[in-house]
Amino acid sequence: MAQPVELDRLRVVLVSPRNPLNIGAAARAMSNFGFLRLRVVNPYDVAFREARSAMGAASLLASAEGCNSVTEAIADCSLVVGSTSIQHRELLHPIRRLDEGAMLIRQQLTTAPVALLFGSEKFGLSNEDLSHCHWLINIPTRDEHVSMNLGQAVAVALYELARENKTIDAPELPEMATAGDVERVTLSLLEALNISGYSTPATMAANEEKIRRLVCHMNLSSRDAELWQGMLRQILWKLRAPQNGPLDGPENP
Amino acid sequence: MAQPVELDRLRVVLVSPRNPLNIGAAARAMSNFGFLRLRVVNPYDVAFREARSAMGAASLLASAEGCNSVTEAIADCSLVVGSTSIQHRELLHPIRRLDEGAMLIRQQLTTAPVALLFGSEKFGLSNEDLSHCHWLINIPTRDEHVSMNLGQAVAVALYELARENKTIDAPELPEMATAGDVERVTLSLLEALNISGYSTPATMAANEEKIRRLVCHMNLSSRDAELWQGMLRQILWKLRAPQNGPLDGPENP
Repeated sequence: MAQPVELDRLRVVLVSPRNPLNIGAAARAMSNFGFLRLRVVNPYDVAFREARSAMGAASLLASAEGCNSVTEAIADCSLVVGSTSIQHRELLHPIRRLDEGAMLIRQQLTTAPVALLFGSEKFGLSNEDLSHCHWLINIPTRDEHVSMNLGQAVAVALYELARENKTIDAPELPEMATAGDVERVTLSLLEALNISGYSTPATMAANEEKIRRLVCHMNLSSRDAELWQGMLRQILWKLRAPQNGPLDGPENP
Repeated sequence: MAQPVELDRLRVVLVSPRNPLNIGAAARAMSNFGFLRLRVVNPYDVAFREARSAMGAASLLASAEGCNSVTEAIADCSLVVGSTSIQHRELLHPIRRLDEGAMLIRQQLTTAPVALLFGSEKFGLSNEDLSHCHWLINIPTRDEHVSMNLGQAVAVALYELARENKTIDAPELPEMATAGDVERVTLSLLEALNISGYSTPATMAANEEKIRRLVCHMNLSSRDAELWQGMLRQILWKLRAPQNGPLDGPENP
């Protein structure tokens, strides 16, 4: 029986972050994707204070826990995953691509708390930090520029973790025009082309086929067909009698 | 036959960004994920200058193009996709979840340039901006906090676009019209509507947006755009001077 993934079981752990904007950005991404448990290890104090006053995810930051060590921050977790920008670190830790790692983390979140660690902007996670991790995730980036901004790395990781957790309504497709509507648009357009001299008696048959195919490929919605028909009616009115002004009344949408 | 997805065909378009840190962050994420073509429409000048001097993606920012309008920024693109944090906008545009939309964008990138638009931090994309878009993508977020930071939204979208960056089997698509071609058709149609009295000074602005969206949704192939342009040119010729016969010479296809 499938268990729901409990986003609330994830602890996002920022280790020694230095820039308050990054702490604030991480909190905002957490709030966007529904992960509300932030722990900050050994932050530069001023940065943490400034971040708490930042906009965008105030309540999440207010409830963020400051921790003195990684040990303390992960104490209640049964799986500890670190993030790294290094794609081929020495094989001390298995490295999984984000999407593969995210599946395993989601699986674990159905039953127990998980810690996801992000290191400082400048140095990433230290070897000591890494020694707490069961394995690492890596966000695939270009070889020439592997190092991501901290707030963006958190956003991408949490997007991937949340991705199977939420559905949005499939795009509502507009009601499509009937073939009858489409044919009326085609005939109006053909008439405008005849009056304007686009089609000659010699080209008329070939044009008719071409224009019918063209209008068919427009995949008109019911609403757009009506709009086209209104526009063509007005153009025809003017082509037939150049002295005409705008059509009056309900015919003119 | 599988075509490689050409990341270089994507134009990331930031419309009216206000914060240099966000422009810099967007550029850094682009560099991380291998998308190197940035266009910035109507930026707050100081912000653009400051961003250019920011660390992290210097060469990408140095080659970023400043544009005066969305029309200019998308002119060479055959697919224009906007991003929105609104999950249930009125049905003027289809909205696709990021992962679904990314598949379609990747498919298009095998053959033609695509523009991906992000709006300003405060207001997102305007209705006028949206009228240039074929459809929209949405990054699924928590209902209680849908609005993402601009730099983070760019990072997540590009991560998703780059994730399957291997060859995919693409059905043969007809060569699509560029946004520049589509705009020419739009302008010709608008002129015909003005001459024929469909638009009045009072309705002209609203009609322009409506008609631009209508033509955009036609998904014109390059060939169909040419056909429409030929037809509208002839209709305009007749509307302007009712005594005119057929256009002569090569202009009349």
